[in-house]
Amino acid sequence: MKDSMERVRGTRDFLPKDWRVMQFVFSNWRRVCERYGFEEFEMPVLEYYKMYLDKSGEELTQQVYNFKDKGGRQLALRPETTPSLIRIFEANKNSLTKPVKWYCIPRCFRYEKPQKGRLREFFQLNVDIVEGGEEADGEVLACAVDLMREFGMKKKDFKIFVSNRKIFEGMVRNITDVDILSVVDKFKKVDRKEFLRLLQRKGLSRKQALQVYRVARIGGEPSKTLKVLRDLCSNTEALEGWQELDKAMKALAAYGLMDYCRIDLSVVRGLAYYTGLVFECFGTKGKLRSVLGGGAYKAGKNDAVGFAMGDSVLLELLKRKKLVPELGKKLDFFVAIVGDSVRDRSKAVIDVLRDAGYNVDFDLMGRSLRKQLDYARRIGVDRVVIVGEKELAQNSVRIKEFGVAGERVVRIDELVR
Amino acid sequence: MKDSMERVRGTRDFLPKDWRVMQFVFSNWRRVCERYGFEEFEMPVLEYYKMYLDKSGEELTQQVYNFKDKGGRQLALRPETTPSLIRIFEANKNSLTKPVKWYCIPRCFRYEKPQKGRLREFFQLNVDIVEGGEEADGEVLACAVDLMREFGMKKKDFKIFVSNRKIFEGMVRNITDVDILSVVDKFKKVDRKEFLRLLQRKGLSRKQALQVYRVARIGGEPSKTLKVLRDLCSNTEALEGWQELDKAMKALAAYGLMDYCRIDLSVVRGLAYYTGLVFECFGTKGKLRSVLGGGAYKAGKNDAVGFAMGDSVLLELLKRKKLVPELGKKLDFFVAIVGDSVRDRSKAVIDVLRDAGYNVDFDLMGRSLRKQLDYARRIGVDRVVIVGEKELAQNSVRIKEFGVAGERVVRIDELVR
Repeated sequence: MKDSMERVRGTRDFLPKDWRVMQFVFSNWRRVCERYGFEEFEMPVLEYYKMYLDKSGEELTQQVYNFKDKGGRQLALRPETTPSLIRIFEANKNSLTKPVKWYCIPRCFRYEKPQKGRLREFFQLNVDIVEGGEEADGEVLACAVDLMREFGMKKKDFKIFVSNRKIFEGMVRNITDVDILSVVDKFKKVDRKEFLRLLQRKGLSRKQALQVYRVARIGGEPSKTLKVLRDLCSNTEALEGWQELDKAMKALAAYGLMDYCRIDLSVVRGLAYYTGLVFECFGTKGKLRSVLGGGAYKAGKNDAVGFAMGDSVLLELLKRKKLVPELGKKLDFFVAIVGDSVRDRSKAVIDVLRDAGYNVDFDLMGRSLRKQLDYARRIGVDRVVIVGEKELAQNSVRIKEFGVAGERVVRIDELVR
Repeated sequence: MKDSMERVRGTRDFLPKDWRVMQFVFSNWRRVCERYGFEEFEMPVLEYYKMYLDKSGEELTQQVYNFKDKGGRQLALRPETTPSLIRIFEANKNSLTKPVKWYCIPRCFRYEKPQKGRLREFFQLNVDIVEGGEEADGEVLACAVDLMREFGMKKKDFKIFVSNRKIFEGMVRNITDVDILSVVDKFKKVDRKEFLRLLQRKGLSRKQALQVYRVARIGGEPSKTLKVLRDLCSNTEALEGWQELDKAMKALAAYGLMDYCRIDLSVVRGLAYYTGLVFECFGTKGKLRSVLGGGAYKAGKNDAVGFAMGDSVLLELLKRKKLVPELGKKLDFFVAIVGDSVRDRSKAVIDVLRDAGYNVDFDLMGRSLRKQLDYARRIGVDRVVIVGEKELAQNSVRIKEFGVAGERVVRIDELVR
């Protein structure tokens, strides 16, 4: 057994300076989602393991932390949130106003090999619309683009690769009946030769494999690609997918956001449950995993569409682009106490400031004034209130602002006006 | 195995309306802690099980969710945060500016019998000072009082019962050497007869038990009780405890918060690790468990003091006092779209509003204007922007405010001025 004071591999400690970065991420996530009219919800960490066996793809269920609780239940730590969302939607279906537009920022858990952009505990934004009708695809995509923009990412910094599984599946149905989605999901990660080899291993002839390759390669600027694709969609399924994708792109164009997207038929997404729209967002430089991904799926019998955005790839991208701001302590005042004789009375000064809503810290340790000022400077506070016997006798204190010469004497009852 | 669509016992689903209540709790928690100069941090959910075996009391470790991960590690879901705080403090000791004033709002996990005010997954505010010197006790107590007040709880609604273990242990050392803390911890839950019986079962004579009973019964208004206690503290240990308690109460008095507290020697707290100050807060009515509790402990070789406040007892108290506000959707505008012909162009209107930072939802489903207005009213939004062909031709929209007669026509470029 490990030393009990060690951190578990793949988990993170967040010191206040680290947690401020996470809060910055969370508040950007919240701001954009609320702006799009999504409401935040939450779900348990502990769910029945069987729910993920039933709902999640095989790759994911292999990564689930599962165990038997003291009552013999097979439980799991949530590895994703879609199954919980579906469960909650089903349980409350009749009382919910439709469409349901929900987001959440849960911590999720996966037993993966820890590496850059992959941790065993991570935070993940989830944005979903259930029963949203034809407009839902476009709205969710627009929200995804705006999330990236909210962090300061420009058009040149990222691209969202969009497709519709129905187009790909419809087109491939003319070539083969074999389920090749898991191979196509690897399209970007392997070269042409390896891609063809993998398809042939699935039972396709070289000719079929080449045909699939040509379909997977289709992509580019949305308007042009949609025009080209229209003629290639030769069956009902593909055409239905085309119409959905066209509608989503028109909505994005209306928002002025279409340029952030590329159509890319090789995007199929690994997870089992997608039924229509599928998309993934990548930074344009470096070889990081996707920063967000999602698509359309079924919540019971209801149409749903959504995506997830993890914290670790996002933070890696933001750091490379220097888009993580300097975030200092949220402290407004430090109160320096000159001598123990004024210690109790200085509480009244602190109280006045806190009562007015200011964040106030003070010396707990009876240090000298010089040391208190050093400390205040070190923790990055701008203003120090100095409480001394002489000024207190006049119901006053001195205020020192770092970077400003001298000090001011202010009456306590005028401190917060 | 259970139906995979069932919720696990002792866990909660938070629909947006429920989550708004939690957010209300969290934001009050955060506001008060920041005001006192505490900084938020976070720790893993997964920690080594051994850490809790080493650091937490026996009662708690029995409630820990523990399991072996796929790599054979004995892991646990955090049942509390103090051991993690100590671990993180020790790992970063040399780089941290002292005192460390930290708070966190983690989700914690305990395998308990689910009942009112007890859940298997819960949120818990934790507030701690490490290396805070003599002033730390008072500061932490003041923060606890102000947390209760922030929710609108008055002096008559709650009391914080405060003691110092050194006083009790010092006084009891004159009576017996037997460790009776676990019995004293039950003082408020059992009657006199049962209390004496439990002490005698520990090996005390009836006379000794009665003496302990008389000590545990000491308590009341702080100034008076401290005066009475001073003469009863006959050894170094008790006297040291008395001085610490006196100092903490003086700090509270200086803040004008002493009246919220009662001294109560029967407060010893169940957990093993407390070394000095101990306190618990109860609502004055009803028979709920403590809403917060804490005390002084050791973080390695360093003095620390802190407390925890769970969400469930707090919410139960607030509900009884009708102190949970009505919390509506945070939506500023609903955009009603009159006819499919303006659907894409209405996106420009939505975009203007969202760009200005407003939270905007709109009809995704192509419903009639009347149905859209019904929907808007039902979700509780005050203002509806109506986008119709006629007004759009003049670069304008109509604005309808619920509760205000009539509608206004506003130019789109003047919408957000």
